[in-house]
Amino acid sequence: MQVYLQYQPTMDVETWKSQLRKGAAELAVLALLDTGARSGIGLLDALADRPAIGLSDGSIYPLLNRLEREGRIAGQWETPKGGGRGQKIYSLTAEGAAALRSMRSAWTGFRNDLTAIVGERR
Amino acid sequence: MQVYLQYQPTMDVETWKSQLRKGAAELAVLALLDTGARSGIGLLDALADRPAIGLSDGSIYPLLNRLEREGRIAGQWETPKGGGRGQKIYSLTAEGAAALRSMRSAWTGFRNDLTAIVGERR
Repeated sequence: MQVYLQYQPTMDVETWKSQLRKGAAELAVLALLDTGARSGIGLLDALADRPAIGLSDGSIYPLLNRLEREGRIAGQWETPKGGGRGQKIYSLTAEGAAALRSMRSAWTGFRNDLTAIVGERR
Repeated sequence: MQVYLQYQPTMDVETWKSQLRKGAAELAVLALLDTGARSGIGLLDALADRPAIGLSDGSIYPLLNRLEREGRIAGQWETPKGGGRGQKIYSLTAEGAAALRSMRSAWTGFRNDLTAIVGERR
């Protein structure tokens, strides 16, 4: 076991991308909910043409559960008037709005500084 | 102990920023070395007006050591002709250039998708 502990793990490019994506997913969800309450499906629809964010059916619910547990979003079950399957609608809490402000500001500085070094290509 | 294991840890905004910064720092260093070999001090100088990247005297050397161990950069000691203190000059390896291409492309997609959601403010 000790052999493994002596080496710091390599950060491969896939791990790097996955870390970037996790950070992006959280900011994207908070920013979307800031424009209005949405269901998990509604969030996935809004992100459908944003593949780099990397949110899928399998990853959005764990993220929403964590954000709800942390008090940044609040979920409420809504049942269609005509009956049928209910869905949980998420909205931003005051705490979530504060986290969003802080993350948005950090993201803007980060993006501008990194773009200045890495280049402006789209 | 088990109580702690039942809860997924909260990802606070500072942790989120720090993850973003780590990813940014690695990409920024590779991109700067792609334009020419530099010392650690030379890299810090180039990043001096880019505070969001968050590299400092204390954090750049662990990063350079890791990148060198991973074979993405190569360091070579150079001593000034007139004598005096030598410094290690880092350059990008072929492996580092390949990692940079992949990270640059991922970063561009990520930045564009997140900007589309979070907004264009500078």
